[in-house]
Amino acid sequence: MHLRTHRKLDGRRLLLYGRAGHTLPALQEGSGAGGGRPHLRWHPLRGEWTAYAPHRQDRTFLPPTEFCPLCPTRPQRAPTEIPFSDFEVAVFENRFPAFVRDPLEAPDTAAPIQPAVGVCEVVVYTSRHEGSAASLSQDRRELLVRVWSERYRELYRLERVQFVMPFENRGEIVGVTLHHPHGQIYAYPFVPPVLQRESEAFRKAPVLRDLLRDLDPTYVVTENEASIAIVPPFARFPYEVWIIPKRVQPGPWTFETGEVTAFARIWGDVVSRYDALFGRPFPYVMVLHAAPRGEESSFHFHAEFYSPQRSADRLKYLAGTELGAGTFTVDVLPEDAARALRDTRS
Amino acid sequence: MHLRTHRKLDGRRLLLYGRAGHTLPALQEGSGAGGGRPHLRWHPLRGEWTAYAPHRQDRTFLPPTEFCPLCPTRPQRAPTEIPFSDFEVAVFENRFPAFVRDPLEAPDTAAPIQPAVGVCEVVVYTSRHEGSAASLSQDRRELLVRVWSERYRELYRLERVQFVMPFENRGEIVGVTLHHPHGQIYAYPFVPPVLQRESEAFRKAPVLRDLLRDLDPTYVVTENEASIAIVPPFARFPYEVWIIPKRVQPGPWTFETGEVTAFARIWGDVVSRYDALFGRPFPYVMVLHAAPRGEESSFHFHAEFYSPQRSADRLKYLAGTELGAGTFTVDVLPEDAARALRDTRS
Repeated sequence: MHLRTHRKLDGRRLLLYGRAGHTLPALQEGSGAGGGRPHLRWHPLRGEWTAYAPHRQDRTFLPPTEFCPLCPTRPQRAPTEIPFSDFEVAVFENRFPAFVRDPLEAPDTAAPIQPAVGVCEVVVYTSRHEGSAASLSQDRRELLVRVWSERYRELYRLERVQFVMPFENRGEIVGVTLHHPHGQIYAYPFVPPVLQRESEAFRKAPVLRDLLRDLDPTYVVTENEASIAIVPPFARFPYEVWIIPKRVQPGPWTFETGEVTAFARIWGDVVSRYDALFGRPFPYVMVLHAAPRGEESSFHFHAEFYSPQRSADRLKYLAGTELGAGTFTVDVLPEDAARALRDTRS
Repeated sequence: MHLRTHRKLDGRRLLLYGRAGHTLPALQEGSGAGGGRPHLRWHPLRGEWTAYAPHRQDRTFLPPTEFCPLCPTRPQRAPTEIPFSDFEVAVFENRFPAFVRDPLEAPDTAAPIQPAVGVCEVVVYTSRHEGSAASLSQDRRELLVRVWSERYRELYRLERVQFVMPFENRGEIVGVTLHHPHGQIYAYPFVPPVLQRESEAFRKAPVLRDLLRDLDPTYVVTENEASIAIVPPFARFPYEVWIIPKRVQPGPWTFETGEVTAFARIWGDVVSRYDALFGRPFPYVMVLHAAPRGEESSFHFHAEFYSPQRSADRLKYLAGTELGAGTFTVDVLPEDAARALRDTRS
């Protein structure tokens, strides 16, 4: 994997990853970063940090294709975030970040606050505006798994970073504001609540290894030599899917070559089953759960996919019990969801 | 307050509460309860129960007004859930419940399960199909506060119930399937995660009393003699509002008469400010957080309102960081939200 590092005029980093080296000349660049005073406030009843990023109100919202900021920069068009005529995978610092490397002083508030130290990156999967994880080539998906691994390694080198999470939001119904195939990476200055609880569970038992050992095939969507995709028997969303490497390991940075291949292949397979389920692009949030700092010895890396789609024409909304109590109600039984995804021919 | 108890033909309870006694004759009733095998499964990584209620997939979805199941039963119309020609406040057991008093045996699954013992009730605020907490009379809102108190008392009498939560979902964007003004009550056989954390916080310190004592007026939306509405300085949603009784108490069942009046008035005031904010009905989830069983000595009752509306034409979606990490990012600063709601003239 080759990496070319470019510093944008406004100071943000742009990283061009590729199977081939990147040598195209830099083109004109657009206007600068969003600014703002991102900061964290402590919620004393829930016992968690919330991130405030008021400048995000102004972020780019579903622009027409010709103004897509994730496309390569084209002659006679406005400059995009990527001042090159082509690329394989591009990673750059978010223009409207919730966490920044060097936050300005936070405002005075009535809540205990701390600076929002961290990093928010955008990962552009391809220079082509259309497509998905399913339509990318297997080579490109493998490159993306290697890019995640590289970003994990570099971001965990930052002393204040406690947890790094690559994720992808897909579909307007989960709030996507840009359609160009891309994901994001958040590097947090604390271990978020969900990861605290997962870490505690893994410290007590190899929960996912035990789950896979005893799992009834009815929960399996698809598998290959090194990874398996299941609907967990305790899914919180309809059609929730987890991709789990069969070998316990803290993150993709410890993958052997065959594991990179296997994970990349099953990732494409899951997305293509999703799209076949109701005959159209399936909205989802994909998150990668790797070990928070210090949890490497017990944490079992995996990807979780959540979707609000509960049938072809109905959505699951989070409301009173989910938002107010933290208890989810689920309409679609995990064993039925797994069967539907298993039987889907994409 | 008067109560008339009616047993529906399918065995479900219907409770008619009123300032006047209810003496109208019972009319024809419709078909029965939804059935299904609701049950709970344990999520070993998050350490929480999830409720499975597959029969809910078939629940009534945005019916035309003339088929509203929450209206009184009318001559020459299909029977509704309430077989009477009029009522003040009606409470009945949900036809598609996530929790039931006597659950059938749960199915075999790969996850540890337990029966979904509990109660799910629907609270119909008025016999009129149109309206909101803001347009109800102050008398009716006070009656509703007394109904909640009565339901708390009765549901906490059930031995297996650990937590009772009245709530209201309003607006299609939070998943409302019936527009008739109504709320719901869930009685859980466990203390849900959010309430576990709140209870822990209150056991350590009177968090809300301390917050109110030191609170900068910039966070206050409105207040009266016994209650205050604030945007908490650590809000997780844009325009989140909490209504807090000034006196620490575990739930509305310990309200004195003046506190019932004050809470009912500020509830209407908050909803009418919400509706004035963008000049149309504001979508929200309102939850009441009273003491779980055993936490009565330290818990400070309050109501929380969450809304996805982050501006007149933009919604906040829960995506990667919220769903996958449990960390919220917020675009609207609480102090700005409080000012906007304070300055609103409804």
